[in-house]
Amino acid sequence: MRRIDLNCDLGESYGAWQMGQDEAVLDAVSSANIACGFHAGDPGVMRRTVQLAAARGVVIGAHPSLPDLQGFGRREMALSADEARDLVLYQIGALWSFAKSAGVPLRHVKPHGALYNMAARDAALAAAIAAAVAEFDRGLILVGLAGSALLAAGRNAGLHVAAEAFCDRRYRADGSLTPRREAGSVIHDVDAAVAQGLSIALHGRAVAGDGSEVAISADTLCIHGDKPDAAEFARRLRAELERAGVAVAALGAAA
Amino acid sequence: MRRIDLNCDLGESYGAWQMGQDEAVLDAVSSANIACGFHAGDPGVMRRTVQLAAARGVVIGAHPSLPDLQGFGRREMALSADEARDLVLYQIGALWSFAKSAGVPLRHVKPHGALYNMAARDAALAAAIAAAVAEFDRGLILVGLAGSALLAAGRNAGLHVAAEAFCDRRYRADGSLTPRREAGSVIHDVDAAVAQGLSIALHGRAVAGDGSEVAISADTLCIHGDKPDAAEFARRLRAELERAGVAVAALGAAA
Amino acid sequence: MRRIDLNCDLGESYGAWQMGQDEAVLDAVSSANIACGFHAGDPGVMRRTVQLAAARGVVIGAHPSLPDLQGFGRREMALSADEARDLVLYQIGALWSFAKSAGVPLRHVKPHGALYNMAARDAALAAAIAAAVAEFDRGLILVGLAGSALLAAGRNAGLHVAAEAFCDRRYRADGSLTPRREAGSVIHDVDAAVAQGLSIALHGRAVAGDGSEVAISADTLCIHGDKPDAAEFARRLRAELERAGVAVAALGAAA
Amino acid sequence: MRRIDLNCDLGESYGAWQMGQDEAVLDAVSSANIACGFHAGDPGVMRRTVQLAAARGVVIGAHPSLPDLQGFGRREMALSADEARDLVLYQIGALWSFAKSAGVPLRHVKPHGALYNMAARDAALAAAIAAAVAEFDRGLILVGLAGSALLAAGRNAGLHVAAEAFCDRRYRADGSLTPRREAGSVIHDVDAAVAQGLSIALHGRAVAGDGSEVAISADTLCIHGDKPDAAEFARRLRAELERAGVAVAALGAAA
Repeated sequence: MRRIDLNCDLGESYGAWQMGQDEAVLDAVSSANIACGFHAGDPGVMRRTVQLAAARGVVIGAHPSLPDLQGFGRREMALSADEARDLVLYQIGALWSFAKSAGVPLRHVKPHGALYNMAARDAALAAAIAAAVAEFDRGLILVGLAGSALLAAGRNAGLHVAAEAFCDRRYRADGSLTPRREAGSVIHDVDAAVAQGLSIALHGRAVAGDGSEVAISADTLCIHGDKPDAAEFARRLRAELERAGVAVAALGAAA
Repeated sequence: MRRIDLNCDLGESYGAWQMGQDEAVLDAVSSANIACGFHAGDPGVMRRTVQLAAARGVVIGAHPSLPDLQGFGRREMALSADEARDLVLYQIGALWSFAKSAGVPLRHVKPHGALYNMAARDAALAAAIAAAVAEFDRGLILVGLAGSALLAAGRNAGLHVAAEAFCDRRYRADGSLTPRREAGSVIHDVDAAVAQGLSIALHGRAVAGDGSEVAISADTLCIHGDKPDAAEFARRLRAELERAGVAVAALGAAA
Repeated sequence: MRRIDLNCDLGESYGAWQMGQDEAVLDAVSSANIACGFHAGDPGVMRRTVQLAAARGVVIGAHPSLPDLQGFGRREMALSADEARDLVLYQIGALWSFAKSAGVPLRHVKPHGALYNMAARDAALAAAIAAAVAEFDRGLILVGLAGSALLAAGRNAGLHVAAEAFCDRRYRADGSLTPRREAGSVIHDVDAAVAQGLSIALHGRAVAGDGSEVAISADTLCIHGDKPDAAEFARRLRAELERAGVAVAALGAAA
Repeated sequence: MRRIDLNCDLGESYGAWQMGQDEAVLDAVSSANIACGFHAGDPGVMRRTVQLAAARGVVIGAHPSLPDLQGFGRREMALSADEARDLVLYQIGALWSFAKSAGVPLRHVKPHGALYNMAARDAALAAAIAAAVAEFDRGLILVGLAGSALLAAGRNAGLHVAAEAFCDRRYRADGSLTPRREAGSVIHDVDAAVAQGLSIALHGRAVAGDGSEVAISADTLCIHGDKPDAAEFARRLRAELERAGVAVAALGAAA
């Protein structure tokens, strides 16, 4: 039976500011990437989010970021490889505390925002992130963009890796994502986004912006939790995946 | 044989700013309380400090703080108990990452600055800190002011606790510290400070500001690492302790 | 003709996080207290909020805070008087830049949250805040709780001051606010809150929690902008004030 | 008579952390670029530094930075032009408060670190910075690298600009600075650095790394205040400039 993970970035509130509909989304996904305080997620938010995930049996992972609350971790920064490694390690440990407190394991690490994008193309940065994950626990799964430098670095470091694909982003013929600044980069139509998710999960391919077919091998599909209809989209995608015979299960779960 | 720990707050540089003489101090103490990023100590500083301590066999502990870089964690803040518990848990995990990476255990937790002072007198805050430590690892030793609410809370939580005393602070007849704002609160004379350390370690007592003798039962003596002569003071204190037959050994070390 | 100001804290979004309904509230109030980056309000939010207020002719003031994004400036901190003076001065200047850019004057300063509450009772802190305002511009109006140490300090510093009262907080017989931790401190009923606002504006008095009448002399009424119905409440209060013959006009506006 | 300004970045301490020898350097330079809190310089440091400069008649300018305390503003960040404009405007106003309080004018603005370097080559960013300066006060002088995009943007915005040159950085034949990552980029020999400063001030030229002569037209020479011998270097450079008949005077000073 085919299987795939549905993951979502969660715990992105901060202090008095709320973001997302974490509880509703958690009812539909299999993995939660939890913010670790650098772009969002103060310690209280981290605790609550871990507990919400644990209560539903949703697997948790760390979602480390560049240090940029104002920019929500979306502004690229020129870090040294050592700086990147150390801030990832710091954030993994911080989140792990709350996992330990809740009695659940930490399963994976997925970099956030600009760090994710930079690590998809920068081999030195990718190696630094992989090193941090390996230093913490070689059993952690490193999640990155399908085909990215980050996954290559994870494999080089002896880690399990998971390739992520997107339902609502348009791919290019070479398998890369159409940059957000280009027209047509985001698939706003819900039916089309669900269809792309199904096609990737079932057949390992998507239709690129130029109409060609492109192979996309993915272990996990990303739900964008900051969209207003994230929970509804996740429920529908999950239902259609299951109807099509694809099991939705967390990364690393026993078959 | 009598024994006592010498501890010092270390890793209090941040980015481009240097503080203290960590390497020289580490040559003389038995335990290092390492800043966790909230009052000092960025992730790179944390890694280096853990490595420096590990290389010398100095035992490490987490030194969590209120979130206040500008105030160096020395300005009291009105946190809720939940906020305090969660920020302590966050910081312990963050430091633990670097300990894990360096292959050394985390032995103790000692709150920093205003958090230490508040927890010495506020039972609810003290309980919150003790709860965070217990959630992380019941084997950790909680370090606090001798006679403080923090040690009581640690015992209530089933933790091992260690009572800290000061060589260079003047005690009052009731065993509390003379507040820093009062004249004579700090013992500037090095001979007098060494003498007080020896008296506490050997006899469990100190001479209070009013000339009376006061019982001070301590497991560890604090070296103030931000003083320019911290390393020299630590070396001399250690030498005189050993000459007097007191073994200097980390908390929790096998006898 | 009687007149009163309606003020609201605005510009309290930050980065990707939204708070409040600034545009709707700005349509109903006469003065805007704009966050200055320490508890909320990044530079982009500050610019936009100043522009929104300027476009409606709403008078703007600075709303400086303790440095505490996570706590939204609501957690008391033990600052020195010098630290308080300097952080208030810093924030006034930062906001003034955006006022200057928008071609509107800065009319007043109202401390935020914990700083407001501390300055209501702590004369030294109040004097420090008043000193910062006076250093920046002796023509600025200092806004504080009616009857507070902050207003006294402002008068001592030769500043114009404005007394603030609350529609939705229950007063005590001595004219102070019932602390939030006590039952009945907040008036949740909208009719009752409007009635209290009218009574203060028209008659200078309110009904205290014990049923007695208490004199409340106020120049401005506070609209709590973080409530979901803030804009609707402000519109209704304004309409009823005007119906009762009270002009709603900004502090310092020509009669 | 030839004249040139000597400028130095000052006020780069933060909280408990000290940096530089501000008083000694202020005795030798004619202009001070004062950190505004984003890379260094808390409000108390800003006040003290402005007062130290004012007491010596040293002209002050704002030294705005990317928001990056840990990286000391030296890590490039991908800001939007609007974000850059707004954070520069914010910081200018914040510093201006302290100038106003000290009774001295703000004369210039010089971006710090990575913001300076990015603005030297990125025309959109440079225009954003120039726009912020112009919004605040069209009389301010914008300081940037000689030949940079920042100076061009300043001229386009109708600002007075000042070209900065370096005594201790090796130029390339095209007038640009040898990047720091390349060997020989920094002139460590004090005699050679003084000689380059004199050559630029007297003759408008320097010897490039390849031995060729390169024209460097500069209004101000930078003293690197974070070097341990900054004050001594500044004194010597000033003495040799004056001996050679070059007046050391602040930008914009009456001739």
